[in-house]
Amino acid sequence: MPELRKDPVIGRWVIIATERKLRPSDYSEMCQTTSEEEGRFCPFCPGNESKTPPEIFAIRENGSQPNTPGWLVRVVPNKYPALRIEGDLNKKGVGIFDKMNGIGAHEVIIETPDHKQQMQDFTQTQLERVIYTYQLRSLDLKNDKRFKYNMIFKNYGKEAGASLYHSHTQLIATPVTPKRVKEELKGTQWYYEYKERCIFCDIIEDEIERGERIVAMNRDFIALTPYASRFPFELWLLPLRHSPDFDSISDGERISLAEILGLVLKKLINGLCNPSFNFIFHTAPNRFLHPGYWQTIDKDYHWHIEIMPRLTRPGGFEWGTGFYINPTPPEEAAQFLRDLSVQ
Amino acid sequence: MPELRKDPVIGRWVIIATERKLRPSDYSEMCQTTSEEEGRFCPFCPGNESKTPPEIFAIRENGSQPNTPGWLVRVVPNKYPALRIEGDLNKKGVGIFDKMNGIGAHEVIIETPDHKQQMQDFTQTQLERVIYTYQLRSLDLKNDKRFKYNMIFKNYGKEAGASLYHSHTQLIATPVTPKRVKEELKGTQWYYEYKERCIFCDIIEDEIERGERIVAMNRDFIALTPYASRFPFELWLLPLRHSPDFDSISDGERISLAEILGLVLKKLINGLCNPSFNFIFHTAPNRFLHPGYWQTIDKDYHWHIEIMPRLTRPGGFEWGTGFYINPTPPEEAAQFLRDLSVQ
Repeated sequence: MPELRKDPVIGRWVIIATERKLRPSDYSEMCQTTSEEEGRFCPFCPGNESKTPPEIFAIRENGSQPNTPGWLVRVVPNKYPALRIEGDLNKKGVGIFDKMNGIGAHEVIIETPDHKQQMQDFTQTQLERVIYTYQLRSLDLKNDKRFKYNMIFKNYGKEAGASLYHSHTQLIATPVTPKRVKEELKGTQWYYEYKERCIFCDIIEDEIERGERIVAMNRDFIALTPYASRFPFELWLLPLRHSPDFDSISDGERISLAEILGLVLKKLINGLCNPSFNFIFHTAPNRFLHPGYWQTIDKDYHWHIEIMPRLTRPGGFEWGTGFYINPTPPEEAAQFLRDLSVQ
Repeated sequence: MPELRKDPVIGRWVIIATERKLRPSDYSEMCQTTSEEEGRFCPFCPGNESKTPPEIFAIRENGSQPNTPGWLVRVVPNKYPALRIEGDLNKKGVGIFDKMNGIGAHEVIIETPDHKQQMQDFTQTQLERVIYTYQLRSLDLKNDKRFKYNMIFKNYGKEAGASLYHSHTQLIATPVTPKRVKEELKGTQWYYEYKERCIFCDIIEDEIERGERIVAMNRDFIALTPYASRFPFELWLLPLRHSPDFDSISDGERISLAEILGLVLKKLINGLCNPSFNFIFHTAPNRFLHPGYWQTIDKDYHWHIEIMPRLTRPGGFEWGTGFYINPTPPEEAAQFLRDLSVQ
């Protein structure tokens, strides 16, 4: 019998489709390995700094000059930005419709100078540098009053929408709080008003007690497959300490995050035949500039990362309903990943 | 300058990304033509009727027996259903979470006995038969009180989630009104409360006056690229007569719908190098069984079909925000399709 499960935050239903069940080993057979297209020019490689817009930030430990080789992590504006940094919003109506200028920031975090290394191959130190860069860029963009939300996300592999192979993350600052983010905020607020507790803190406690959906845990973070997983092997990384903002993590938490993120990516990539994936940071909006609007958010929202392997393709049903059909129960996915040993 | 456009029904923002603009001709170059895998066994072909579950309905004009060849359109339960027809919902809590049994109907409408013909190749008569079948199945499933919504959708091509080549549509009846459907209903209700008019009727009037986003029109239907198109060449087909329910169409409207659907599919398939696409019927929920809950829906909701070519792959940004980045302005898409002549 298929099972319908409800995500307690968003209220989204998911069908755990036991009739069309896929076990972890089935995914290796339908494997669409992510690999490099050889011989293509790479604008993210050292030596090609002039092929990107001038850098916004870089970690350089050898005293090298901006926009020259020697960097360890480098941040540049997207050459083909979805949103542009210069200008005003200029909101207006067009007949029955509404529009505004596409103002925002669209940055690319080039995670390594090494063209061949992907995030799952990074040393602990390199992963800490990358996360530190996310944190600094997020804090910096919060100073621009036009932006309401900073979205950090990674597209790995073609199925996940990546167009360049060289390992990178994107950061988009938007002039409106995105719809999906608002839904999540509304869900956490609703729960808080009823229970006076953070729903994510409650989920963490419930999951630790059950254990069956835990993939990994360290002193500051837990990695689990959520109860109402939309996708096979969907993973959430949650900080054990309640905090609404990713960019408020401490030095110690950054080390723990690098540890657990590296570990779960290795497990996904090795265990499932190098699948495409997206990860998305879910963090509170830039409310410091809009006080009053977000009354209880410090208490009710809990930042986290959602990792979505792209092993199945959503069809018309998913698009039309917002209902997802997931052929792999999250308990089996968790067990498989938990038991998998990686170096 | 990129432009942010807001969908007036759902409130979803879309980025019309002029910096990364793709013209219609660009899509032919990145073409991923949908084609058949030769030599695979097809359970939907005449002669293989025993390989599907027994038929629920068929159009047979030659007096042939059920589950034998001779049908023109055939409806069978999905062999690997996402939801099962037998049983009770049995809603219950599991710790902090909620679940219920996966009760529902999952039917496959095999649109033609001809393995090679796709919907865009059908005669007008065949397309009318298919639409008539949608209508009858939808009306029939409304008699089952456990189901709140009937979703008719088609996945064409691998990028759109199709697993079998033989032309088919799916119908899923769900035990809860899906989230996305509720959002749309809420949007139309909100507008109606404010204006005392149907938002879709207003959109149709506005679009006819402007003309720039119209692709085709006949006596009963209009095909247009919506103002806040999420995807390049997204198309909506709307009935000119206000009506909340697809399955209330008249015989005359069925003929008009077959005409315009056949026309726009030919345009999409010929003009854009046979892309994968989804279409989804957006119609009112099965409210007759739940009176009172849907007070103004007969006045505020307007059924329609949304067609979404899968020319770009949504990445982490779209998944995380519900914001879409569309590199092709709908005005250009409409002009291209409008000017394209097809046989």
